Amino acid sequence: MADQYTSMENLRFLLHDVHQVSDILDHERFVDYDVDGINIMLDAAKDVADKELFPYFAEMDEKPVRYEDGKVIVHPQIKRFIEVGAENGWIGSWFDYDQGGMQMPQMLYGSIFHILDSANNNVAGYIGLTSGAANLIRNFGSQELYDTYVPNMLAGKWMGTMALTEPQAGSSLSDIKTTAYPQADGSYKIKGQKIFISGGDHQYADNFVHLTLARIEGAPQGTKGISLFVVPKNLPSGEYNDVFTAGDFQKMGQKGYATTHLVYGENDNCTGWLVGKPHNGLRYMFQMMNEARLSVGSSATAVATAAYHASLQYAKERPQGRPLTSSGKKNVDKGQTFIINHPDVRRMLLLQKAVVEGAHSLLLECAKIGDLESMTEGEEHDNLHLLLEILTPIAKTYPSEMGRISISNGLQILGGYGFCTDFPLQQYYRDIRIMSLYEGTTGIQSLDLLGRKVTMQGGKALQLLMAEMTKTIQEATTFDDLKKYANILTEKLELTQQVLQYLLKFAMEGDYSRFLADATMFMEYASTLVIAWQWLKQAIVAKKALVTGNMTFDSTFYESKIHTMKFFFKYEVPKTSGLSQILMDDEVLTIVEEKELIV
Amino acid sequence: MADQYTSMENLRFLLHDVHQVSDILDHERFVDYDVDGINIMLDAAKDVADKELFPYFAEMDEKPVRYEDGKVIVHPQIKRFIEVGAENGWIGSWFDYDQGGMQMPQMLYGSIFHILDSANNNVAGYIGLTSGAANLIRNFGSQELYDTYVPNMLAGKWMGTMALTEPQAGSSLSDIKTTAYPQADGSYKIKGQKIFISGGDHQYADNFVHLTLARIEGAPQGTKGISLFVVPKNLPSGEYNDVFTAGDFQKMGQKGYATTHLVYGENDNCTGWLVGKPHNGLRYMFQMMNEARLSVGSSATAVATAAYHASLQYAKERPQGRPLTSSGKKNVDKGQTFIINHPDVRRMLLLQKAVVEGAHSLLLECAKIGDLESMTEGEEHDNLHLLLEILTPIAKTYPSEMGRISISNGLQILGGYGFCTDFPLQQYYRDIRIMSLYEGTTGIQSLDLLGRKVTMQGGKALQLLMAEMTKTIQEATTFDDLKKYANILTEKLELTQQVLQYLLKFAMEGDYSRFLADATMFMEYASTLVIAWQWLKQAIVAKKALVTGNMTFDSTFYESKIHTMKFFFKYEVPKTSGLSQILMDDEVLTIVEEKELIV
Repeated sequence: MADQYTSMENLRFLLHDVHQVSDILDHERFVDYDVDGINIMLDAAKDVADKELFPYFAEMDEKPVRYEDGKVIVHPQIKRFIEVGAENGWIGSWFDYDQGGMQMPQMLYGSIFHILDSANNNVAGYIGLTSGAANLIRNFGSQELYDTYVPNMLAGKWMGTMALTEPQAGSSLSDIKTTAYPQADGSYKIKGQKIFISGGDHQYADNFVHLTLARIEGAPQGTKGISLFVVPKNLPSGEYNDVFTAGDFQKMGQKGYATTHLVYGENDNCTGWLVGKPHNGLRYMFQMMNEARLSVGSSATAVATAAYHASLQYAKERPQGRPLTSSGKKNVDKGQTFIINHPDVRRMLLLQKAVVEGAHSLLLECAKIGDLESMTEGEEHDNLHLLLEILTPIAKTYPSEMGRISISNGLQILGGYGFCTDFPLQQYYRDIRIMSLYEGTTGIQSLDLLGRKVTMQGGKALQLLMAEMTKTIQEATTFDDLKKYANILTEKLELTQQVLQYLLKFAMEGDYSRFLADATMFMEYASTLVIAWQWLKQAIVAKKALVTGNMTFDSTFYESKIHTMKFFFKYEVPKTSGLSQILMDDEVLTIVEEKELIV
Repeated sequence: MADQYTSMENLRFLLHDVHQVSDILDHERFVDYDVDGINIMLDAAKDVADKELFPYFAEMDEKPVRYEDGKVIVHPQIKRFIEVGAENGWIGSWFDYDQGGMQMPQMLYGSIFHILDSANNNVAGYIGLTSGAANLIRNFGSQELYDTYVPNMLAGKWMGTMALTEPQAGSSLSDIKTTAYPQADGSYKIKGQKIFISGGDHQYADNFVHLTLARIEGAPQGTKGISLFVVPKNLPSGEYNDVFTAGDFQKMGQKGYATTHLVYGENDNCTGWLVGKPHNGLRYMFQMMNEARLSVGSSATAVATAAYHASLQYAKERPQGRPLTSSGKKNVDKGQTFIINHPDVRRMLLLQKAVVEGAHSLLLECAKIGDLESMTEGEEHDNLHLLLEILTPIAKTYPSEMGRISISNGLQILGGYGFCTDFPLQQYYRDIRIMSLYEGTTGIQSLDLLGRKVTMQGGKALQLLMAEMTKTIQEATTFDDLKKYANILTEKLELTQQVLQYLLKFAMEGDYSRFLADATMFMEYASTLVIAWQWLKQAIVAKKALVTGNMTFDSTFYESKIHTMKFFFKYEVPKTSGLSQILMDDEVLTIVEEKELIV
C-alpha cells in the first residue's frame, strides 16, 4: 500500500456533497468551473503533491533551513515547487483573469492547498504568503505599486511576506516600533526589526516583498498609529534596499520553512512605500490576517489529516496482541490480530478521524461563506460576513489545538515507533505545534471570539450561527437515527445561552477582566459544538445517500461517516459539561491580585 | 535570575510536611537518616545537577547519541555522570550496607532522582536501569550471579538493562521469540533480537548486563513460558559474548539517551544464565517493572516540573501587552505589563503547577507506601501492597499524559519563542512524549488499572484507596475554607461508585471487551480524582501552617498551595463530569464489528 496522506474521497464528499460547491458555480465569476473540472484540478494537485512534495517531507526535516553568512538556504525542492505553483496558477488563484489570475472559488483554492499541505506542510506557505501579500497590494495599494510588484509575485519570481511581529511586542501589535520617515518623493525611509517572518528570505527568489507594519514618525500611539508599507529586499532596479536578514530561527518543527529575522535600514538606506492611507495599516493587514487565520486552520487540519492516514495505515498492517476472550484473558493459541481491532486503538483512530474530518468540514463551510460573500450584496452579504467573522477564530483554533491532540493519539498508536524518526508521526507532532501560535495564539483567538465576535452588533453574528446550527438540527430530526444527536445539540445550544448569560453579565457591568478571563475555555466549549454541528451535517448527507441509494462511494464510506458522528457525540461533546461548569464557576483564580500567588 | 528547573522548597514541603518522611526514619533500616541529613543529601544532589547535568541538557539534544560501525557513541558527560552517580552511592542507594548499598528510603531515592531528572532527563536512566537490573539479580538470582555481576554494576563499571521488547511483539510480551537453548553446564545459548533497549550500549562502560526475557526451548506458549536470563555483552572474562548492537533508534526527544537494537547469538555464541526458576521470568520482571513504572512517572513529573519553572521565569520577566481596562480596551498610555498578569497566561501557569506538584505529591505518596511496605508484615503489609498496586498505573500515567499537556501550555506561554530551539520548552515538549509509551503504554496501564487492579481481591485495593481518600476528606472538612472542596471530592467518589457499578456489570456478564473498551477514559477519570486528593492533602498541610503560624517557608508559599488546590478543583475536576458520561454511555463504537467502519 502506497503511503497515503489524505483521502480524495473525503475531500470530494465534503466539497461536493456536504458543502455543495455547485451552489456557487452559477455565478458569472466562476463560469469556467464545473464539478468535473474541479475534480480534474484536484487530481492534478494530488499528482503534484505525490511527486513534488510528499517525497521530500522527511528530508526537509532532516536537512532544515539554515542561515549562512547573511543568507538563508532552503531545500532545493522549494525552487521546483515555486515553479510548479506558478505554472499551475496557484499563486494568483483568486485573482481576476485580467490580473493574470485564475478567478478560483475559495472552496477550490482551499481544497488544493489542503492537498499540498497534507503532503508537505513546509512548502505551501512560500506561495501562500506571496499570494496574500500580492492581494494586499491589489486591494489597498496604488496602481503603480501593483504594476511594480504583483506580476512578478504571481509569476513566482518574487516572493511576498507579512512582517508584523517585533521582538519587544510579540502579539501586542500596539507596541511595534518600526518607524517610517517621510521623504520628499512621497516614499519613506524604514528603520526597525521584524521577527518570525515566514518565508522571509531564501536563495530561490530574486526579491522579497515585505508587507510591513510601521509607524510614521509622530503617529499616534497604539494600533491607530500603524501604517502598512511595501518594503522590498531589493529595489525594482535590483539595487539592495538595506533589508538585512539577520538570522533564521531554528525550530522544533516545520524545519523546511524559513522563519527569518529582518533588520530594516541598518545603513539608513531602506525605502518603503505606503499602502493605502496612513494609520490604516492594521485594518488592511487584518483583511489578510483573517485569510491567514483560515489558512493556518487549514494547514493544521492538513497536517493532522496526514497523521491520521499514517496511523490508520499502521494500525491496519501491524499485527500485535489478541482480542480479549470472555474471561478477560488473551487467547495465545490464536494468531495475533491487527491492532486496529483493539478498542483503545480504534478509539484513538476514530478520535483522529472525528477531529480532522470535522475540522475540514468547518473550513469548507468557511470557504463557501467567503465565496458567497463575494457574490452577494446588502443584508445577505453583511450576514455572511458576520457569520465568517465569528467562525474564523474557531476555524483557526480548533484544528490547531485538537489537531495536535489527534496527532498525539496517532503517535501513540505506533507505540515506541511513534517516537522514532523512522516514522512520520513524530514529525507531524512537532510540525503542528506551531499552528496554535501562528497568526494570533489560541489565547488571542479566544479573546477575539468571546470579546469581539460574540458581542458584535448586539450578538448578531452569534444569532446567525445559532440559526445555521438550528437549521441542521431540524433537518437531522427528520431521520429517526439522527434524532438523538440532534436533541443533544439542541440541549447544548440551550446550555450555551446559560453560559453566555452568565458571562455577559460581567461585560455589562464593565468587568471585562472577569468576562474574558476564561475565554480560552469558552473557545474549547464553543468549537466542540461547532464541530458537532459539522458532523451532524455530514451525517445527514451520508444518511440520505444510504437511504436513496444515490451513492458516489461505497456504502461503508457513508456508514463510517455516521459512525464517526456518533463517536464525536459520545466522546467529544461531553467535554462541554465540564467546560460549562468552569465557565459558570464563581471562583476567581486567574485575575491578577496584589499578591503573587504563583511560586 | 539563574535558570531554575525545580523548586527545592516544594520538594521539602512534599517530603517533610505533606508525606512526613520522618514517619519511616524510626525503622532500624533507616537509622542513619534524619531530616537534616536528608536535606543535606538533597542539596548535594542539587549541586551535582546544577554543575554536571543541567548545563549539558540542550547540548545532548543538539548532539544526539549516534551509532557508528557497530558502536553507540553518547555524550562525554555521561561518563562523568556515571562516576558521580557511583561515588554518591546512587546506583546502590536502596541496597543493604553489607551489599555495598546505602539503605536509602525510596522517598529519598525518589527525591534525588527527581532533582537529577528535572535537570537533565537524558541521563539518570543510565544508572537507574543499572540499579534496577542489579536489584533483579539480588532478588531472584543465585549468589554466584550476584557476586559475578552486581559489585561491578553498583560501582558504575558495568551497566544494566531490561531487555523485553521484540520487533514482532511490542507490548504483547506473550509473543516474544528470543530462545534459550539449555547447555550441559547449566547455562543457555541465547538467540533472538530485542529493540528499544534503553542505555543498551555506549563507550563508557566495560560491560552491559542485559536482564533478558526469553523462552527456554520447548517452553509453554504465552507468558507462562517466559524465563529471565542474565546475558552480558562480554563474558566476565572479558571475552565478547555475541550480543551485537545493531543500531540506535533515532528519536524526536531524549536524544541523549541511547535506545538500542540488540542481536543475540548471531554467531551462535551467546551465553545466558537463568535467573531464578524457569518460566517465572515475567513475574520477576514485573517486580522491576512496577518500580520502573513509578520511575517513568517520576521522570515525567520532573520534565514537566522543569518546563513549569522555565515558563514561570519567562512569564515573570517578559513585558508584553497591558491589563484590560473596564471598557475592555487596552490602555496604551501605560507601560507594558509582565505577561504573568494576563489571566490566560496565569491560567496556563497554574495548570502547570497544579499538574506537576499534584503528580509529585502522588509519587511521594507511592514512595512512602513502598517504604512502609518494606517495614511491615502481615495484613498491614498486604494492604500497603494492594494500595501501591492500584496507585502504580495512575502514578505512571497521570504525569506522562497531563505532564505533556502542562508542557504544551508552558510552551504556549512563550509564544513563537516556545517553538524555537533558543528556549528549552520545545525540548521538554519533545522529551516527555516518550513517557506515555515507556514501560507499558497508557492503554496498557489503563487495562491494568481497570481490568486488574480495580477488581483484584474483590475490589479490596480500591476500597483501601477510597478509605485513604475519605480520611483526607474528613480532615479537610474540619477547615471551613476547605469544606467546599472536600464536599466536591465526596460527590465525585459517589459518582465513581455509579461508574464502576455500570462497568462491572459487563465484567460479571463475561463481556470483558465491553468492560475494558473505555479503560483509558477511566484512567483519565480516576487519575484526576486521585490528584484532587493529593491537592486536598497539600491544602490541609498549608492551611495548618497558616493557622498555627508554624511555617518553614513564607506565607505566600502556603497561600499559593491553597490557591492551586482551588484551581485544580475549578479547572480540572469538572472533566470528570464528561468522562463519567462517556463511561456510562450505552453506545458501543470502538469494539470490532464485522464491518470495518474506519476509512
